[in-house]
Formats: sequence, structure tokens, C-alpha cells
Amino acid sequence: MKKIEVIQNILEANEAIASRNQKLLNGSKVFCINIMSAPGAGKTSLLLQTMKLLKGKLNIGIIEGDVASTVDAEKVQSEAKAVVQINTRNMPESCSLMAAMIESAIKSMPLDKIDLIFIENVGNLICPSEFILGEHKRVVISSLPEGDDKPIKYPLIFIDADAVIVNKMDLLPHVDFDIDGFRSSIGGLNPKAEIFQLSCKTGEGVDKWCSWVSEQIEANVTEQ
Amino acid sequence: MKKIEVIQNILEANEAIASRNQKLLNGSKVFCINIMSAPGAGKTSLLLQTMKLLKGKLNIGIIEGDVASTVDAEKVQSEAKAVVQINTRNMPESCSLMAAMIESAIKSMPLDKIDLIFIENVGNLICPSEFILGEHKRVVISSLPEGDDKPIKYPLIFIDADAVIVNKMDLLPHVDFDIDGFRSSIGGLNPKAEIFQLSCKTGEGVDKWCSWVSEQIEANVTEQ
Repeated sequence: MKKIEVIQNILEANEAIASRNQKLLNGSKVFCINIMSAPGAGKTSLLLQTMKLLKGKLNIGIIEGDVASTVDAEKVQSEAKAVVQINTRNMPESCSLMAAMIESAIKSMPLDKIDLIFIENVGNLICPSEFILGEHKRVVISSLPEGDDKPIKYPLIFIDADAVIVNKMDLLPHVDFDIDGFRSSIGGLNPKAEIFQLSCKTGEGVDKWCSWVSEQIEANVTEQ
Repeated sequence: MKKIEVIQNILEANEAIASRNQKLLNGSKVFCINIMSAPGAGKTSLLLQTMKLLKGKLNIGIIEGDVASTVDAEKVQSEAKAVVQINTRNMPESCSLMAAMIESAIKSMPLDKIDLIFIENVGNLICPSEFILGEHKRVVISSLPEGDDKPIKYPLIFIDADAVIVNKMDLLPHVDFDIDGFRSSIGGLNPKAEIFQLSCKTGEGVDKWCSWVSEQIEANVTEQ
């Protein structure tokens, strides 16, 4: 099984670089959150709403991961302290960010002027679950129109999440989505995960998520 | 670049098996359509609506690809002539179906009783674009809540599509989606792709898609 061996080597190399990334971040007192979701679940919208609410409190840097294009980076440009775009299209792994890509991105950012980096991963519920990047917290966004069965169909990404965001709550009257069923699927896979129900369109519920982010940063400072 | 070489070998082996799959399908007069999309765009709902409309006209078999679970297979079970579930979780490539998985599935189906096989690929806009399976047509579903920028951000899967379905048209009053912009992005990448706007929830527009499917089958019979 030549391919499996190669993948094993890649995962081990990735972990070593991820651990180096986290040391670099800690040394610069920068907290880092990896945001993962299916395409179109609202990663960029969440970043925009979060930066709006945390303005003046935290200096935020963004690493944008996309197969192609810079449309997301352009959207967050004016609100972020620094933005780095990574296009994975011609890289060995195009379906996820990997720690080596993040290492280059971090090193190009003014870390002394940044408190928090959000990594917007490539839109995919499968590959990003395999690659840690050096982040302090892993967050998965699910959105109502995707349906409530995503934790059952893509369990791995939810098992490792520190928080799960249920986005597009404003669409609840228009789609079939069993919130209790969804929460109970997450509870079954990963009872420690925090769950936030919010709408990036109306802004409802974003404050609770932002409080959690601030608390995580404070807890990390205390730990060190 | 050991990994790139391995990937190249895998793609070549995949193409050889895909070509064998298509010969087997043609020999049995079975047409095959590969349905791809992001998680939750409506692949299973499209299959359910399509089987409802084509009932009595075509005998349909379904190959369900999922990382984990059998929830989709259970949903289509009563309407399909035959259903095969493939779970990719522990396979070398978990983020897409591959031709070898389809070969086993096809061989286990009663091909003499089937006119059309739909392959529901794993929910992912990246990996499935790399693997042909032996299908006659490739179809991508985009849904309104995902946003109109998906062709720009995930171009490869749209470039190779024979048809693009815009699903969840019933949500148009509730989400921001520029239909003309979306159509023009598809036109720029792949001017030959047919585009169908429909709603699997209300059933609106599904008839045109079903007519296209029937026409493709007739055209394939004439060709051979």
C-alpha cells in the first residue's frame, strides 16, 4: 500500500510543522483559530461579523485558503490588520490547507501587531479534518440549508472541533432543519464542543460567539 | 516529489478502470450520470424528485457515495430498482469516489433490469473533479444558499460538467444570489454546460432536467 505509507509520512511531517507554528504563535502572543466548513456555509461572513464586533478590542489577521480566486481576501481586506491569501489549486494537496502553507503565511504577517489570526480553511468537510495547522482552536460551521445530517455523514471534522457554529438561523422558517437532532448528533460525537446558533446575515447570536473567542484568548494567556 | 508521482499513477490507473466501467455499462445498455456537489446542496433530493418523475419510464439504480452512514441510501431505497452504498471513510481516498469503487458497485447490480444509474458522489467540490468513474455525463449541483461565487472558487468541477443544476430556487427571496452573475461565470468556464434552475422542495423545474436526462439516454443509444 504505497499510497497509504506516503500519506502517513505526510501527516507526520504536517504535525511537526504544525507544532512549530504553534510555538511561533505563542512566542508572539498570537492566538489562532482554524475555521472549517462546507463551501458556502458562511466562513467569510462570520469573519466579517466577528471583526466588526471585536474592533478596537483585538487586532485580527486573516489567512484565506481557497482552491482559486481572491474574492474572500478582498472581502475581509478593509477590516483586517493583515490578510494573506493561499491558493491551493496547484499545490500537492488542493482540498485542504496544510501546516507548511500556514508557516509561510504566518512568517509574512506582522505578528507584533496582531492578537488573533483566523485561518479560513478551504471549503470542504473532509480533507481539513486530517491536517492540524498549529491553531489553538478548531471551529466547524454548519448552515441550516445544508441539512441536520452533516455530523452523521462527515463525523471526523466534528469530532475534533472545539466549537460548532450553526449559521443561517434566519432561514429556519424556510428550510427543514431539526436543531435538537443536530445538537444531539454533535453531543454524541463530541460532548465537549460548544455550540453557537447564529445568523451572520442579521448578526443575531454573533456576540456570544465573540465572547467565547475572547475567553479562549484570556485562558491561553493564563496557561502560559 | 514522491507524492505527486504517486498521485499521477493513481489518476492513470483510475482512468483505465473508468474506461472499463463505461464498456461494461454500454454492453448492458445502462446509462450513467455522476452527480457532484458541496455537502447539502441537494443531491439526494434531486434523485428522489427525478425517480418520481421518471417512474414507469426508466428503471433507475443508485450508487450512494458517503464518507460515513447510510442515511442517503435509506432515503432512496424504496424508489430505486437497486441501491449500493459505498462508505469511503477507511478507503485510501475518502474525499471522492474512484472508478475502482464504482466497478465493484456496478458488478453487484442487476444491470439487465436497469436503464440508468445515478452515482451520488461524496459531498465535495474539489476531489471528485479529479476522478472520472466511467459515467456518461457529469452533473454539478449548486444551491442558492451557498452563494453565486462557487464557480469562481471551485472552477475545476464546473469546467468538466455537462450540466449544472441551480437548486433551492424556492429560497431566492431569502438569500443573496445573483443568478445572472452565476450563469455568466459558468458561461465563462464552460459555455457548453446546460444550466437548470429548479427546486427539489417544490418540484419546480425538475421536469426540464428530467427531459434532458431522457434525451441524453436516447442520444447515447443512437450513437452506439
